[in-house]
Amino acid sequence: MNAQFFLKWERSGKSLNIRGLHLIAEGDLWKGGVQFTRFQTPKGFRDLSPDDVKKYLYVEKSFRETFELWGYREVRTSTVDYFDIIRGGAGEGFADSIFKVQDSDGRLLSMRGEVTTQIARMLVSKAREEGRLFYITNCIRFMEVKSLSQREFWQAGAELVGGREVEADAEVIALSLGALESIGIREASVDVGNVELFKRVAERFGIGEFDALKRAVASKSLGDLKRVTPDEKAQEAFSHIMTKRGGPDVVTELSRMVGGATEGYADYFEELFGLLKTYGCADKVRVDLSTLREEMKYYNGTVFEIFLGGLGVPIGGGGRYDAMMKEFGLVDTRATGFAMSVDLCVKALEASGFDFEGSRVPTTILYCDGFRDKAIRLACEARRKGSACTVEKYNGQREGIAVGREIVDLKTGKRYAP
Amino acid sequence: MNAQFFLKWERSGKSLNIRGLHLIAEGDLWKGGVQFTRFQTPKGFRDLSPDDVKKYLYVEKSFRETFELWGYREVRTSTVDYFDIIRGGAGEGFADSIFKVQDSDGRLLSMRGEVTTQIARMLVSKAREEGRLFYITNCIRFMEVKSLSQREFWQAGAELVGGREVEADAEVIALSLGALESIGIREASVDVGNVELFKRVAERFGIGEFDALKRAVASKSLGDLKRVTPDEKAQEAFSHIMTKRGGPDVVTELSRMVGGATEGYADYFEELFGLLKTYGCADKVRVDLSTLREEMKYYNGTVFEIFLGGLGVPIGGGGRYDAMMKEFGLVDTRATGFAMSVDLCVKALEASGFDFEGSRVPTTILYCDGFRDKAIRLACEARRKGSACTVEKYNGQREGIAVGREIVDLKTGKRYAP
Repeated sequence: MNAQFFLKWERSGKSLNIRGLHLIAEGDLWKGGVQFTRFQTPKGFRDLSPDDVKKYLYVEKSFRETFELWGYREVRTSTVDYFDIIRGGAGEGFADSIFKVQDSDGRLLSMRGEVTTQIARMLVSKAREEGRLFYITNCIRFMEVKSLSQREFWQAGAELVGGREVEADAEVIALSLGALESIGIREASVDVGNVELFKRVAERFGIGEFDALKRAVASKSLGDLKRVTPDEKAQEAFSHIMTKRGGPDVVTELSRMVGGATEGYADYFEELFGLLKTYGCADKVRVDLSTLREEMKYYNGTVFEIFLGGLGVPIGGGGRYDAMMKEFGLVDTRATGFAMSVDLCVKALEASGFDFEGSRVPTTILYCDGFRDKAIRLACEARRKGSACTVEKYNGQREGIAVGREIVDLKTGKRYAP
Repeated sequence: MNAQFFLKWERSGKSLNIRGLHLIAEGDLWKGGVQFTRFQTPKGFRDLSPDDVKKYLYVEKSFRETFELWGYREVRTSTVDYFDIIRGGAGEGFADSIFKVQDSDGRLLSMRGEVTTQIARMLVSKAREEGRLFYITNCIRFMEVKSLSQREFWQAGAELVGGREVEADAEVIALSLGALESIGIREASVDVGNVELFKRVAERFGIGEFDALKRAVASKSLGDLKRVTPDEKAQEAFSHIMTKRGGPDVVTELSRMVGGATEGYADYFEELFGLLKTYGCADKVRVDLSTLREEMKYYNGTVFEIFLGGLGVPIGGGGRYDAMMKEFGLVDTRATGFAMSVDLCVKALEASGFDFEGSRVPTTILYCDGFRDKAIRLACEARRKGSACTVEKYNGQREGIAVGREIVDLKTGKRYAP
């Protein structure tokens, strides 16, 4: 590294401007007495190194295979959409967090911040009513995602459009766990709630301050709950919602507290868990009716979050969004799906000491003076046979295959016929 | 498709606004007397359908394999960069064409419009001087790319950083052709020029209007050339540059016309073609000294463009950009590389009637009343064995595996033990 303009620099966040280029001093990169200064990526953005990419490709490839085995087909959505459409689907709160740019005709565009709204938009644009679709893509949000301090992140998700409600809900939960198993994560757990059920209980007690109620439940604060409603029966019901986790019994118990308000839901959860048992994953799933996935306004039925021990945030989640399909014009179309963070999956695997598939380490084929063509021909032949290799001039290396009058493995000293 | 608010609509570009959502009437989607209206993607952007993705993955997977065989390692660059850095590398002209957005601290960010500048920025940030890197990614430009009327496009590219000049130039040209061969495109050809050689000839004749000269050469206009320089010797030389294509002789002839101005280049091109012959691809490569790749300011040596018969635009191209590495602080680092359009590769394969690898068609497992659990268990078992399948309720379908008291293949009528 030539350091001609890399000044000796304080271990600080100072920056300087050279030839119009903005350089940021990076203490971490101090090496051998030379202060490296780097061309930084913007806050929240980063490059993935070859070692990173190897890990990401492992996760993505495994997810792709699992999704395909379950009959899902891959799509790639446009990176840019009309802002109106995305705001219409995902809501104002989410819309605040996405990158916007004005098109030359004055209309506001937005970068992909999440994919579900785009899939709905895509299905409407193609007048498709059903299908199993998946995606593996990056998303960008202007505000930091609290879990990662990242503004660009990679996610994989699946959407089941059409289909019967409880069967579809069970399928996507089982699929999300199956996808995690395919990458070697077996200890994931899922919390299931239901946005509509929650709303019905609030209506049953005539609670007007719905947002405050959701905040109180999200923060599991009995004090806040009491400020939202003085009704003891309501407090009892929402305290139950906040604190009880378990099987479908949680819903049956709630039904007893609220009379007919949650009619049908106990049966629904019984059936859901029966299906999950058939899929072999019921032991990983718990009812937690405080699960609401508030960040997207489009959920309107069963929602779920996927957790891994050790990670304080969900590794993924999803739920039912029939209401968005309806709003977009597909009135009778049911839809559910989920997304999982590829970044968090990679982190979890790293933390568990997972041995990622080794990438092909290329053999270096070194040529002595006068043997360059021979080395290139050897490399071409090796590649045809599926061996990765590079060609370099020999400069005293200790490793590689040296090509001269003889061909020599420099590490083992083994000689081959010329 | 429920058409409750899809009005009968003229075959025109009219739009309407419903619930704040902008709908565009699309004549093309007229079907069966119902006028479909769609949630459009912005101009120049599109979704890739499952059939598209299958084709893109085929091209990308083949490229990935080839690049790895040649010892290149995959990176993913940040989607967003500081605008200053990208403008500094790729130049004002390119910088005009990329999406910009202001960060919360007021600094201007830009979306990825091409990757080479990012790779240089990344190497500088990591104080890495050499390596073989590749990428497969989308890029976004605000202005239309004339070849495709697309603003989002997919490309694959490789960068060889460090290494000896002529060997590296030959390697990336051979690799680009090898990558195309790996996807089944054997009829590609490459035009090679040299930006520095061109500049030296201009200097030899003292031509001040360099940009006008390049425009004259690019448009192959003798008239324009005469307006740029009255010098007949210069006209002869640039007319040669414009019109002659062939082997290294083209450079030898030019050398005779311009005296010592192009010293060393005849030998360089002789050596380059010798290497390409060894790689087995010299017959696909021609010297065309009017090749300048003007759109990026960072090229400063050998440049090349890759053509396919039938496509009026290059399918890819690249060249040497040591000067950018130097400007970014890696003063003694040589670098060359290329990018190819995945979109154009897919188009070319489609046009040639190429048979893309079939994607897994999932089997539908249908359950009769009372046999849902059995069907799910059968599906789980099939997936474990690597067979893609979905589970649906039987509603009179003619295809699939029906699960009841017996298991029946509905197409063949074959019955299996329960």
